[in-house]
Amino acid sequence: MGEKPKHVSYGCCAAGVPGSKKGVSGVRFSLAPMSDGYAEQILGAIRKVDLSKLWSKSDATSTVYRGTAEAVLDGLRACFIYAYREGVHMSLDATLTKGCPGDVDADYTLEFEEPRVNYPKLAAFHFPVAGRFAVYPLGTDSYMSLIADTVNAGIDRGVVSGSGHYATFLQGDVHAVFDYLSDIFLSLSARVSHLVIEIALACNFPEEN
Amino acid sequence: MGEKPKHVSYGCCAAGVPGSKKGVSGVRFSLAPMSDGYAEQILGAIRKVDLSKLWSKSDATSTVYRGTAEAVLDGLRACFIYAYREGVHMSLDATLTKGCPGDVDADYTLEFEEPRVNYPKLAAFHFPVAGRFAVYPLGTDSYMSLIADTVNAGIDRGVVSGSGHYATFLQGDVHAVFDYLSDIFLSLSARVSHLVIEIALACNFPEEN
Repeated sequence: MGEKPKHVSYGCCAAGVPGSKKGVSGVRFSLAPMSDGYAEQILGAIRKVDLSKLWSKSDATSTVYRGTAEAVLDGLRACFIYAYREGVHMSLDATLTKGCPGDVDADYTLEFEEPRVNYPKLAAFHFPVAGRFAVYPLGTDSYMSLIADTVNAGIDRGVVSGSGHYATFLQGDVHAVFDYLSDIFLSLSARVSHLVIEIALACNFPEEN
Repeated sequence: MGEKPKHVSYGCCAAGVPGSKKGVSGVRFSLAPMSDGYAEQILGAIRKVDLSKLWSKSDATSTVYRGTAEAVLDGLRACFIYAYREGVHMSLDATLTKGCPGDVDADYTLEFEEPRVNYPKLAAFHFPVAGRFAVYPLGTDSYMSLIADTVNAGIDRGVVSGSGHYATFLQGDVHAVFDYLSDIFLSLSARVSHLVIEIALACNFPEEN
């Protein structure tokens, strides 16, 4: 054990004022393949993702991507698909964020030309996923209507399969679900100063085998 | 595929007014043992938890506990410890919530006498965990100072090991980390109308073996 970290000082940050003036979006995520071969499955996927449009850092528990919203979602989708193995149950837990008042204009790649650099290689991969998400618009009073609009758009698209305590359920082809998540992250980002979307997806449930 | 679910209607809920008038706390969580024996490891733990002080429901991807804050944290800690296997890397992803305007006074057990019914059986189990958490106080402008206070309390207790993008890092004995999470959930619940705490913990990292 080293010395204790110093106290943080972002308590004075103003709500409604993103810390990143350049509009950096980001995600922190973890993959959990429920298999003895999990380590190579995770590390192999992380290495395969084209990071030319993203800043990335991995530690022992998670990976962070920072860039444009489109590039962040493209990288997340790619890492999940590259980690897929037929018959292996796997979960993805991800936190998408934009506009945190404590954020800074550092650790990013902002490439606005063709940010979805991974998608063309993955468009032909299809498998069913199921999971849940929750939207947290911070620093605003009107957040419940934003959440309801978002959920109802997912019902109309056929990827929202129901609601439970603390979550809205997702179900569908991997691309249909990621298309929806990408679209709501982009559209909510335009309406909310500080946005968090928590996502949990999984594939190859034991019930299916 | 059945019919599409009906549109949700909680867009009209008022911020600052919890939907549950009885003050029900809750958690939705998933365990991911990264081992071929994951299914029995998860199901065995879920079955072992004493639910006499909690309402509980499990589906294919997650489990929900609802009750007092103390009982919810006690059940979550118990399920994680019961799922522990020496040498098996495992992650826990959990979303703790209280005060959502869209919540309802249903699906709960509220037992205020000795809510921590699982703890005595587990107090002697010790193993190191590492992970991260993020606090989201909804519907308030002053949330960044609440978050900073919470993080600094964790630094003083020695369970907060640093900060990264979108998360604060946790490290320590399983009980020290859960004691801290229980304490901050209780103290923040008293200061915030609608509170969400996102938690990711893991044990038995491959680097340790």
